[in-house]
Amino acid sequence: MKDRRDLEAGGPRRKAEIFTAALDLLGGLGYDSLTIEGVAQRSGVNKTTIYRWWPSKSELLRDALLHSHLLQFELADTGSLHGDLTALAERVLALLDDEHRRAVIEAALVGAVRHQAMRELVVSFLDDRLGRHQPVFERAVARGELPPDADPAPLVDAMAGALWLRILVRRGEVTGTYTRDLIGLLMEGVTRTAPTPGAPAP
Amino acid sequence: MKDRRDLEAGGPRRKAEIFTAALDLLGGLGYDSLTIEGVAQRSGVNKTTIYRWWPSKSELLRDALLHSHLLQFELADTGSLHGDLTALAERVLALLDDEHRRAVIEAALVGAVRHQAMRELVVSFLDDRLGRHQPVFERAVARGELPPDADPAPLVDAMAGALWLRILVRRGEVTGTYTRDLIGLLMEGVTRTAPTPGAPAP
Repeated sequence: MKDRRDLEAGGPRRKAEIFTAALDLLGGLGYDSLTIEGVAQRSGVNKTTIYRWWPSKSELLRDALLHSHLLQFELADTGSLHGDLTALAERVLALLDDEHRRAVIEAALVGAVRHQAMRELVVSFLDDRLGRHQPVFERAVARGELPPDADPAPLVDAMAGALWLRILVRRGEVTGTYTRDLIGLLMEGVTRTAPTPGAPAP
Repeated sequence: MKDRRDLEAGGPRRKAEIFTAALDLLGGLGYDSLTIEGVAQRSGVNKTTIYRWWPSKSELLRDALLHSHLLQFELADTGSLHGDLTALAERVLALLDDEHRRAVIEAALVGAVRHQAMRELVVSFLDDRLGRHQPVFERAVARGELPPDADPAPLVDAMAGALWLRILVRRGEVTGTYTRDLIGLLMEGVTRTAPTPGAPAP
């Protein structure tokens, strides 16, 4: 097995196709039925090449989840925590609004409940994304919007969890109003999200 | 099929056993493999009796989810919204801490992603529970803690979603600190959970 640290820069020549094939098969078949042979067939890459880089399907899936362009998005820098969180929610919504990507995320979450290996991959993915979102919180600390020791974990859990329940379970349309209410709740708290008549808007 | 409105008061004689068997099989086998024949066998109730009340497995599961004592808990009335939400989170955590109940909830959530019928059952269950939690928000409005038109949906989504991610996906231990931070976030907002020294509260 090649050094995994080479992966961002190098990796096998048709890395993007391999990752896309792995995620397509995860979304279409689920974790159980995914095989490296299937990924080889779908991507058109020889299976010995794939095995050289990823000896098991869980190692391949880990890198596909972390590095495929399918599940990535650029963070916005809007100049406020409120704006950055709103932009983040909109990026997540756009991702879930795409049937192909939603199928991948659904299969990963279903797999995470059923299989320890898939669960560890989802936790790695969530940790990776929490790390990538760190600049949002660092900028908020630098602006004095958050205390230096603020822990973003409950905030990120609450935002991701609410969107998950709304979209994947309720299949509800998430309107701009819902996003605004949710971000308002997380920013200002429930007691301040809908000011009583006469009170100034926050 | 008997009148479903009779169910709370009456229903078949061994209703509790039928509901427990249905939820056990949901937790153990998943939605796909659950059959009314299986519920009859496990509960020891004749299948024609079950069919007389519930012509399909989705109707049986709906009533089992809504009415079984397995998934119910009493709401606390602590005198403050903060206290009531903390108590609610603790009740949900106690429920998920029980392997048997957690298996039912996991199977329902996994089923909800895969099958429209199961998804509708989960949405009914969530709506039923949101309705049962309504007194928490009505009392908060009466105490002046919430404006009369406050919508509890994003709050409940955020709380349930965060606990789901933490427990069912991350399999993390939810400590008292995590619950306190989460309720603090939902009550006061992220910018107010730990104000910086000297900075005025927003």
